[in-house]
Amino acid sequence: MKKGVKVIDYSGDFRFNDLETYRGYAARIGREQDHASPELLPASVYGLAELHRQEIAQSDLIGNPGCFAVSCILGLAPAIKSSLVEPGSIICDAKTGVSGAGKTPSPIFHYPARYDSMNAYRISGHQHVYEIERELGIIAGEEIRITFTPHVVPLCRGILTTIYAQLNEGQNMKGVEEAYRSFYGDEVFVRIFGPEKLQISTNVRGSNFCNLSLNVDERTGKLIVVSLIDNLVKGQAGSAVQNMNVMFGIDETAGLLHPGIYP
Amino acid sequence: MKKGVKVIDYSGDFRFNDLETYRGYAARIGREQDHASPELLPASVYGLAELHRQEIAQSDLIGNPGCFAVSCILGLAPAIKSSLVEPGSIICDAKTGVSGAGKTPSPIFHYPARYDSMNAYRISGHQHVYEIERELGIIAGEEIRITFTPHVVPLCRGILTTIYAQLNEGQNMKGVEEAYRSFYGDEVFVRIFGPEKLQISTNVRGSNFCNLSLNVDERTGKLIVVSLIDNLVKGQAGSAVQNMNVMFGIDETAGLLHPGIYP
Amino acid sequence: MKKGVKVIDYSGDFRFNDLETYRGYAARIGREQDHASPELLPASVYGLAELHRQEIAQSDLIGNPGCFAVSCILGLAPAIKSSLVEPGSIICDAKTGVSGAGKTPSPIFHYPARYDSMNAYRISGHQHVYEIERELGIIAGEEIRITFTPHVVPLCRGILTTIYAQLNEGQNMKGVEEAYRSFYGDEVFVRIFGPEKLQISTNVRGSNFCNLSLNVDERTGKLIVVSLIDNLVKGQAGSAVQNMNVMFGIDETAGLLHPGIYP
Amino acid sequence: MKKGVKVIDYSGDFRFNDLETYRGYAARIGREQDHASPELLPASVYGLAELHRQEIAQSDLIGNPGCFAVSCILGLAPAIKSSLVEPGSIICDAKTGVSGAGKTPSPIFHYPARYDSMNAYRISGHQHVYEIERELGIIAGEEIRITFTPHVVPLCRGILTTIYAQLNEGQNMKGVEEAYRSFYGDEVFVRIFGPEKLQISTNVRGSNFCNLSLNVDERTGKLIVVSLIDNLVKGQAGSAVQNMNVMFGIDETAGLLHPGIYP
Repeated sequence: MKKGVKVIDYSGDFRFNDLETYRGYAARIGREQDHASPELLPASVYGLAELHRQEIAQSDLIGNPGCFAVSCILGLAPAIKSSLVEPGSIICDAKTGVSGAGKTPSPIFHYPARYDSMNAYRISGHQHVYEIERELGIIAGEEIRITFTPHVVPLCRGILTTIYAQLNEGQNMKGVEEAYRSFYGDEVFVRIFGPEKLQISTNVRGSNFCNLSLNVDERTGKLIVVSLIDNLVKGQAGSAVQNMNVMFGIDETAGLLHPGIYP
Repeated sequence: MKKGVKVIDYSGDFRFNDLETYRGYAARIGREQDHASPELLPASVYGLAELHRQEIAQSDLIGNPGCFAVSCILGLAPAIKSSLVEPGSIICDAKTGVSGAGKTPSPIFHYPARYDSMNAYRISGHQHVYEIERELGIIAGEEIRITFTPHVVPLCRGILTTIYAQLNEGQNMKGVEEAYRSFYGDEVFVRIFGPEKLQISTNVRGSNFCNLSLNVDERTGKLIVVSLIDNLVKGQAGSAVQNMNVMFGIDETAGLLHPGIYP
Repeated sequence: MKKGVKVIDYSGDFRFNDLETYRGYAARIGREQDHASPELLPASVYGLAELHRQEIAQSDLIGNPGCFAVSCILGLAPAIKSSLVEPGSIICDAKTGVSGAGKTPSPIFHYPARYDSMNAYRISGHQHVYEIERELGIIAGEEIRITFTPHVVPLCRGILTTIYAQLNEGQNMKGVEEAYRSFYGDEVFVRIFGPEKLQISTNVRGSNFCNLSLNVDERTGKLIVVSLIDNLVKGQAGSAVQNMNVMFGIDETAGLLHPGIYP
Repeated sequence: MKKGVKVIDYSGDFRFNDLETYRGYAARIGREQDHASPELLPASVYGLAELHRQEIAQSDLIGNPGCFAVSCILGLAPAIKSSLVEPGSIICDAKTGVSGAGKTPSPIFHYPARYDSMNAYRISGHQHVYEIERELGIIAGEEIRITFTPHVVPLCRGILTTIYAQLNEGQNMKGVEEAYRSFYGDEVFVRIFGPEKLQISTNVRGSNFCNLSLNVDERTGKLIVVSLIDNLVKGQAGSAVQNMNVMFGIDETAGLLHPGIYP
């Protein structure tokens, strides 16, 4: 940064611009040493353009978001903004493809051990929960605690998060859809669907899109949002390219408008 | 039945012993004609031996349970019995392998369309919710409404249901574990695990076991139970064999003690 | 065609420009009616640009090639051209992903039946053998009979054909490599590799490339060529686009230079 | 062995009872040190009961066979015994599931790298070729050299080897079938099929059976045998159990008559 280059950081070290939240996050992933450059934290920006476009445009240091976090935050932001739901009731049940675990081989991602297997892991203890709560808390103007459980399922690309929350009194499907369409307006990479059209992860595979499927369970008064991204694109490299585009003032969609890979 | 044979019914027609609940269920799966033999309903028994062993032993007509229902009911029964949770907060997020869809080929289960895909379906509208609510309601002594979302993930065998519910005031992990261990006692086919041991669907693949992993999210006060079965065994054929063993008074585990298939 | 449009035919009906060969081919796939437009056959051209570029440029009717045929012909053409091998000894052992079977669901391509399965089929009876023998025969100047066995393996995209043939007296690895490099010269879409670099089907997945790996088994005097394509691109739609480019005189690589999809 | 226990060796060190062949094999797998116990070699027996039942029964030291070798030897033994084919023309094209690579994780067997991938490897250089040539040579009474190419395809369990050989003058399908049925007679674990019934690897998955599909390509005079085993059963642990049964004089099929796993 001293040489004047702009930085988009993948490490997770600049997803929080205060040291205290960083330390909570770092403890979760067993990082023992303290932050190496705490003086840079105040100037860093969380790299989700749909929420922080103006700040990203003016910053030289972006913390690229976690894949699960992108999926959950985009799926919940309008509900929080419009006070549709009780924050304490929020549950995010995330299913990720195996590429989310990175490229380092390990016994549980060895093909014969994984091909017909699925599991939950880090139940109530995944580090991405910090980013999600931080971003939702900023929108809400108050602290929010969510329940988040990640799962690995045997495919390569994709995160499907099923988000549940208790609707506040008087809310219904019509209001939900209006809140989400209003919140995302002309956003290119967020697409909103009602309950009538089945959303499958291949609809976003290989693309930078996030597909949100909105549903209300009228029997129980729950909002159910299914949020789909490709963890390798909108969940990581695609968001980085989008951030780069914003930082350099070029077309935000440059290099990102390819459709999904199918099949 | 007039010829004196005992019947274990796979069709779903004898999972409810009153006509009204059956009709709600039938409407969900688009069945237009009324029940063909309503006079047999009162004598039928729901075929989950862990809950209805004595009645199964004395009945000649068993409604074999739905695969999702087995997974959810076994994962929730002790929590309901011991009033650990608020019934209105229960959410069951189920992930099933593709064999749960049966053997009839269709475009969405064609290998190229399915191999790297996942999706939620029948959001807040799956027919198995009736069995789950009925059984839990009997235990609770009051009507219960749950939120249930099924998902298809690209493996063959297995159902993993992640069950969430708000713990009642004063409940904690210790009490949860005691309630579950006490409820299942010497049951052979239900195995209970604390949060420290990762449960993966291959632990039950090819077997009649149901593995329950108990967790409490202390930050949000939620009980999180991960319930694992093989949908083709405990989820269907294995339960049928278990029911047959009970009906004929032979060893309940006969033919069912093979371990899981691995890998 | 009467309206002056150029046609690239996918059906297999214009892969042979004489009626007799067509009829042998049609018999193999159980087509009972005769060719609907035999008068068009003489003007049709086999759509493999690497072999028929000039004719394609001048034709209005192209028979797009079969996926297995592309894989085998590209892997064998230089060996035939340079008389490296005994034609009677040629064996093509092809492994295809499931997308090669098309989009129509069927019991053997239903996910649960296919995910951990593989099989040979139409042993010594697949219809693509006609195209292969026809094209190789044109190069050889004499009739050629090959042994061809297709297999389905449980992945989506890709054909890997392992080609075996007895080297003629005096031939060796050096001559083989020279013959292949000379034959393909500046061809963009055919890439040649020696035995030292492992070729995996993901190297061509999603791309229009054909990767040929050249090997000689010195103990047995066999040439072993491993030919890799993506059956949905170079094996079908990519070849069609390449043919279209040639027919319209635009850059042959237009729309086709994207790299493979990985992972 | 000094303590009087019988040994079934998995390491590959006792698959050859002469030091010279062992050294050729060891060189292939990069083993630098010499055999640790060459004095035991003469008393060791190759552990394929279908060929060496009497010797296994009388031996205390069995070299358990390689998985590819089982597949190839069982598929070729009758053809060699009855002089149906030209030995110099033999080609074995083997496809194995990923479990054949063992349990050690590595980048090429990491789920995301393997799930939609296939490749040939050790082309003309796999170490199992030594066992195959040795066993076939004993039957033939002369040295035999074969061409063997292994491939990895993305499934877990199974080896499918497609074996090609030039039929000798005057041989035909009828004679082939008679030779194979006569050779295997009452063998429990080898099942012979004509070309009319499709053989798929799930037919043997989880079982100790070897299914042989016999075919003749009349256009080219080739014998084509498709040999199917489960590499983890008949290809390794199942053969070991079978050897143990023979060594101890108990029923050869004890513990081995379970059917395949399906699906």
